Amino acid sequence: MSLRDTIGAFIDRPAFRNAILGVILFNAVILGMETSKPLMDAIGPLLVSLDALCLAIFVGEIAAKLYVQRGKFFRDGWNLFDFIIVGVALVPAAQGLAVLRALRILRLLRVVSVAPSLRRVIEGLLNALPGMGSVFLLMALIFYIGAVMATKLFGAAFPAWFGTLGKSGYSLFQIMTLESWSMGIVRPVMEVYPYAWMFFVPFILLTTFVVLNLVVGLVVNSMQDAHHVEAEAETGNYRDEVLARLGDIEKMLKERDSR
Amino acid sequence: MSLRDTIGAFIDRPAFRNAILGVILFNAVILGMETSKPLMDAIGPLLVSLDALCLAIFVGEIAAKLYVQRGKFFRDGWNLFDFIIVGVALVPAAQGLAVLRALRILRLLRVVSVAPSLRRVIEGLLNALPGMGSVFLLMALIFYIGAVMATKLFGAAFPAWFGTLGKSGYSLFQIMTLESWSMGIVRPVMEVYPYAWMFFVPFILLTTFVVLNLVVGLVVNSMQDAHHVEAEAETGNYRDEVLARLGDIEKMLKERDSR
Amino acid sequence: MSLRDTIGAFIDRPAFRNAILGVILFNAVILGMETSKPLMDAIGPLLVSLDALCLAIFVGEIAAKLYVQRGKFFRDGWNLFDFIIVGVALVPAAQGLAVLRALRILRLLRVVSVAPSLRRVIEGLLNALPGMGSVFLLMALIFYIGAVMATKLFGAAFPAWFGTLGKSGYSLFQIMTLESWSMGIVRPVMEVYPYAWMFFVPFILLTTFVVLNLVVGLVVNSMQDAHHVEAEAETGNYRDEVLARLGDIEKMLKERDSR
Amino acid sequence: MSLRDTIGAFIDRPAFRNAILGVILFNAVILGMETSKPLMDAIGPLLVSLDALCLAIFVGEIAAKLYVQRGKFFRDGWNLFDFIIVGVALVPAAQGLAVLRALRILRLLRVVSVAPSLRRVIEGLLNALPGMGSVFLLMALIFYIGAVMATKLFGAAFPAWFGTLGKSGYSLFQIMTLESWSMGIVRPVMEVYPYAWMFFVPFILLTTFVVLNLVVGLVVNSMQDAHHVEAEAETGNYRDEVLARLGDIEKMLKERDSR
Repeated sequence: MSLRDTIGAFIDRPAFRNAILGVILFNAVILGMETSKPLMDAIGPLLVSLDALCLAIFVGEIAAKLYVQRGKFFRDGWNLFDFIIVGVALVPAAQGLAVLRALRILRLLRVVSVAPSLRRVIEGLLNALPGMGSVFLLMALIFYIGAVMATKLFGAAFPAWFGTLGKSGYSLFQIMTLESWSMGIVRPVMEVYPYAWMFFVPFILLTTFVVLNLVVGLVVNSMQDAHHVEAEAETGNYRDEVLARLGDIEKMLKERDSR
Repeated sequence: MSLRDTIGAFIDRPAFRNAILGVILFNAVILGMETSKPLMDAIGPLLVSLDALCLAIFVGEIAAKLYVQRGKFFRDGWNLFDFIIVGVALVPAAQGLAVLRALRILRLLRVVSVAPSLRRVIEGLLNALPGMGSVFLLMALIFYIGAVMATKLFGAAFPAWFGTLGKSGYSLFQIMTLESWSMGIVRPVMEVYPYAWMFFVPFILLTTFVVLNLVVGLVVNSMQDAHHVEAEAETGNYRDEVLARLGDIEKMLKERDSR
Repeated sequence: MSLRDTIGAFIDRPAFRNAILGVILFNAVILGMETSKPLMDAIGPLLVSLDALCLAIFVGEIAAKLYVQRGKFFRDGWNLFDFIIVGVALVPAAQGLAVLRALRILRLLRVVSVAPSLRRVIEGLLNALPGMGSVFLLMALIFYIGAVMATKLFGAAFPAWFGTLGKSGYSLFQIMTLESWSMGIVRPVMEVYPYAWMFFVPFILLTTFVVLNLVVGLVVNSMQDAHHVEAEAETGNYRDEVLARLGDIEKMLKERDSR
Repeated sequence: MSLRDTIGAFIDRPAFRNAILGVILFNAVILGMETSKPLMDAIGPLLVSLDALCLAIFVGEIAAKLYVQRGKFFRDGWNLFDFIIVGVALVPAAQGLAVLRALRILRLLRVVSVAPSLRRVIEGLLNALPGMGSVFLLMALIFYIGAVMATKLFGAAFPAWFGTLGKSGYSLFQIMTLESWSMGIVRPVMEVYPYAWMFFVPFILLTTFVVLNLVVGLVVNSMQDAHHVEAEAETGNYRDEVLARLGDIEKMLKERDSR
């Protein structure tokens, strides 16, 4: 048995997977503890070292997988995901940027690639996305049109909310979630443009209606899938039996006719 | 081949449709850029000219379609939609009114009439509307009754919210969306009329319940349609086969009887 | 034909129903116009007289129905509804109380008893209620327990929100609708009682979960009913035919056996 | 008949259950009245004594059940629930702590264990939980990652909202419920970190999408169960009959063949 096979057998053992899962969770706790100022003052260097140790283990694990699977490694989306999550932490500049340091906690997402039940949930969520493509496109259209109109109509008087396309888009997203849409945004706007409700109320009704249809579509699709699988298993046997028996009867009748 | 047929063949070509789609998207980007003050200061005249060019292309396209299809042009709802969207921009006064200028971005909605997948989503949404007719009527009743009552009861003390039927209707819509209903509206009203909650809480429960029933109705309808189509395709074949075989058996038995 | 039959035939005519529907809608418009101060200043006495005229017509209609149907009149819930709505306006003291005058617009609800399509929607809503009985009872339990606890825990420090059982119930209803629950209520409370979130967050999760189950139950029930009706109509014929043909075959076989 | 059997027969009688139900409701009213300051000033000692009396009755009931059922008592979850609810009130220190005194109203939850219809609703809710396990786990992951990132990114500038992991978790829960997320939290944060929306908007979309999938899963599961039960009862008889008749026909044909 070559070294490659030995390592391959080792990283496929459940004990190894569980150990990696343990390291991921331990790393998440370490990163959580790093957010606490008193803990950092007391045992900061220890936490940083433990974090570096976890990172070293992950690098070792991925190096081993790469060595064993070679080209096939990158064909699996979850491997690619692990590679990027761990790789980002190794970029030297990453230690300097607060944002990239904050992203290290995303390593906790690796439990998804290790735990099969979570993997199924995520894959279920991702499967639901393509069917919603046209609705997302429609939503993007509505938002772009709404943002251009809001910027042209209210941008001059309310630069903080509708000054640019980006600000309008954000404000319209806030309005779609119904957060402070009236007291916070539309009533102040109506004091300058009394007919502003003719833009905002239809916008709310339209986006709510589109979101509603998205939800309905999602429910119907899930139900179809579930129903289909169950109905197949349930009625398939019965139908096969009826057809088989009808075939038997026909055969018996034909045989006697030909006698 | 007459000129009319030549033009008809030309505007039916996929390349022509895609070119028009490209012009629509290009025009949307131009209109988006017109909302940016720095861009307008730098290349404002260019943007305005490009917008005029796009409009000229749309006018030419619709003129060609009108020439080819003549009377039949207006029988298709999507054609009518294109005609109005483009036509509005040609009204001379339209250039003077900020509101009508802002409406030009609605031309982007033309992608819906060009892209079949979006067209299906919109047609699906429109199909859902008629079944919701009586519920909308009921909602209109509830809002009219609510607005008259709120105006009579609270209009004198809170003219900004309930001074007229229109203001009451808007405030009730805000309350139905649950935005700041209590901290923003009902708690201040209750300081003057301590029993105001006896109007607002039932209003919230009632409208929420009606909306809920609308959603449930929508889910059930979509499910029915989907289930019907699927069940037909799936069980239709099986049932036809069972009936055909039973017919065969009966025929065989009858033939023998008559022998 | 007696006078009673003549009147009975008259009030059953569609033209009479439509006329009453017209009076109801006309009355609603009059009551809407009464909320406008400028209109009341200009033609107030006219509006009041027209309202009185509408009321007189309703009284006449109900008197006629009572005369024709006698005891049976009150067996129909919709008749009882009409009787109370119109009757309230005749109580002399009612003219003195602003609240009871505001209730006159409820007469518009009579269109529900006249228009069959709205009647069906309302009956559909009412049919959904009994199945939700236990969930409502559970909700009442949660609210009573929550109100007692909130009053005992936070009543002393926040009398305006949790001073009495009633105030606590109202505040909890607001929190259940998620309106300003955190910024408006829970964050201020947490400044005094830092662990207040241990009461409010579970309360939100619990009530949301119960409401969610109510919605799911409603969807499932509606679906069951719709599915049952459709499935019956669709597969009933097929099943009857299969059983009838099997019966024919058995009969043919038995007849031949006994020959 | 031993004393134990006599007591066992007594506490199984419906009249006894109803009496206990009455005491529970009476106790709930007493505890509600204790929240009213005027009532406490007037008849405070009476209310406290009546509460003690109710408690004594509960202790007696549970002692009797323990005596009758012995070891089996604790195998039923509802018995355990009753035992804890009543037991807490007997801890001496409990009278000193305002929080534990407030928990006494939880005794009202005992109606759930007495009333079968409420018991079914609760058991239905509890049955729905296990299927949602992986989604809850995923939600916990998202919240932990979000809290660590928010604390690292915004903790220094906004200690009141994101100062510690706990505060960040609470703020993210508030943002997930969409309460004041934009006007209250994200807009102020964006004044310091203009790109903060790149964290919060995806967080809202992600959690909303996960919650949506939870709801869809719940609807599909309930529908499956309901459909399964109904379909079994409905089509089971028909299918059994078809198979039985086909069997009869085959038997008749075989018998004749062997003749």
